[in-house]
Amino acid sequence: MSTFDADAATDLLASVFAPWIQDLQLTIERIGENDAVLRMPFSERLTRDNGVVCGQALMALADTAMVFAVSAASKAYRPMTTVDQTTHFLRPVAGSATIATAEVIRLGRTMAFGRITLTAEGEARPAVSVQTAYALLGEPPK
Amino acid sequence: MSTFDADAATDLLASVFAPWIQDLQLTIERIGENDAVLRMPFSERLTRDNGVVCGQALMALADTAMVFAVSAASKAYRPMTTVDQTTHFLRPVAGSATIATAEVIRLGRTMAFGRITLTAEGEARPAVSVQTAYALLGEPPK
Amino acid sequence: MSTFDADAATDLLASVFAPWIQDLQLTIERIGENDAVLRMPFSERLTRDNGVVCGQALMALADTAMVFAVSAASKAYRPMTTVDQTTHFLRPVAGSATIATAEVIRLGRTMAFGRITLTAEGEARPAVSVQTAYALLGEPPK
Amino acid sequence: MSTFDADAATDLLASVFAPWIQDLQLTIERIGENDAVLRMPFSERLTRDNGVVCGQALMALADTAMVFAVSAASKAYRPMTTVDQTTHFLRPVAGSATIATAEVIRLGRTMAFGRITLTAEGEARPAVSVQTAYALLGEPPK
Repeated sequence: MSTFDADAATDLLASVFAPWIQDLQLTIERIGENDAVLRMPFSERLTRDNGVVCGQALMALADTAMVFAVSAASKAYRPMTTVDQTTHFLRPVAGSATIATAEVIRLGRTMAFGRITLTAEGEARPAVSVQTAYALLGEPPK
Repeated sequence: MSTFDADAATDLLASVFAPWIQDLQLTIERIGENDAVLRMPFSERLTRDNGVVCGQALMALADTAMVFAVSAASKAYRPMTTVDQTTHFLRPVAGSATIATAEVIRLGRTMAFGRITLTAEGEARPAVSVQTAYALLGEPPK
Repeated sequence: MSTFDADAATDLLASVFAPWIQDLQLTIERIGENDAVLRMPFSERLTRDNGVVCGQALMALADTAMVFAVSAASKAYRPMTTVDQTTHFLRPVAGSATIATAEVIRLGRTMAFGRITLTAEGEARPAVSVQTAYALLGEPPK
Repeated sequence: MSTFDADAATDLLASVFAPWIQDLQLTIERIGENDAVLRMPFSERLTRDNGVVCGQALMALADTAMVFAVSAASKAYRPMTTVDQTTHFLRPVAGSATIATAEVIRLGRTMAFGRITLTAEGEARPAVSVQTAYALLGEPPK
């Protein structure tokens, strides 16, 4: 049986993703049974002219977090590709880190579905709500 | 009457967006009546471990392109914010630039709606299809 | 201060919606602070050739349930219109009633956002996951 | 080689869909290479209290039209199921029939992707814009 824990997740974060995504300086906060929590630190490099974290970085964080939730639910990283992502922007994130909580709501043989919620760190109310489908490639881990 | 042409668009690209988005090195290819074409050059900084342009960069390109289409349709840049973006990933983009064609399909008083199609440069078939709603803030330009 | 309770909801269900939606024979199961639970009984009139409840009825149930969640959060029905709805179909519903739980995740001045989860009655796992934005028309109730 | 023409489509419309969908009295207007046009007549049974065609019927029309576009692109009907549908409501349809134009933008081995545009009959501007993914079940027709 494979395991996928925070150490495996940190290795994955450093190896699979594009350098441009590495620039977001994401960290793994938690790997659960079928969910994952990632943190994106605040940076002026991510802010628009109006001082809020740009929506593009929030979408990128959500997509990245979902890879970890699917890996957690699968007990190992497996090649996957995003089929679709729907992102609703509810409230701006300004001047703080962003926390992404990604949850797998169905893990099938060839597809996974999830919901991701982003919040400004220390804030209970959701800033961004995401719904997504992934295609799972190759065999599931033994 | 305001105008919004390729020069105004190039100025906008350099001023409103986050430095992390500037890293994409986007260029304005065309500004139309209610549409805009942007180009994202290929870079290994944007590629995943499997050699394809990461989905996060494609979502970011689409969102950015839509700001220019809304500005074109409005005849000037106006403050706006993304309400939602739905992105379907149809085919990978590998080793080539990505072209984004964004079109406003409804420009209302307080909201705009659009479709964006991304293709690998020189390829007719769509790589990514996006549907989006924007909230328009403040008064429309005179 | 207005109130919006199960009786008000039952009146609303009978008055605002199209006769074709009345055919779904929905009932109000619960009205909460900012959420609502509706039930759609099983009917062969809603099933496809393969015996599962058709996706169109599931989308319709979700959209309808959200009107009640927004009314609950607003403390009264107010005119509203769906801006967009994204529906992911996770598992089929076959031979049983469908329960819709709609929750407002942000109630703004002019827009509301929500998530709706559908399950086959008596089943914990989600059958359908929905994310949506509504435009709120006219003044909020006093 | 299979064919899928307007006659085959009319047979399909009468056989696969739920009786509740039959109530919409849809007709096939055109079957193309990888697209389909369907018509939903106006009916007071489909209108909300405010006189506009209810959004639920528009979503149902779009989903149904896509089945025909996928069948057209596949040269025959094949079992399929909706993975997700994102619907943006741009303008109300009041007092007129609704025309749905569904187009397959990618037909893969196991998935199909499409866009559907709805308009009030005789009106050029889109009323509803839809983006969708379908899972294709079983073998493609020979």
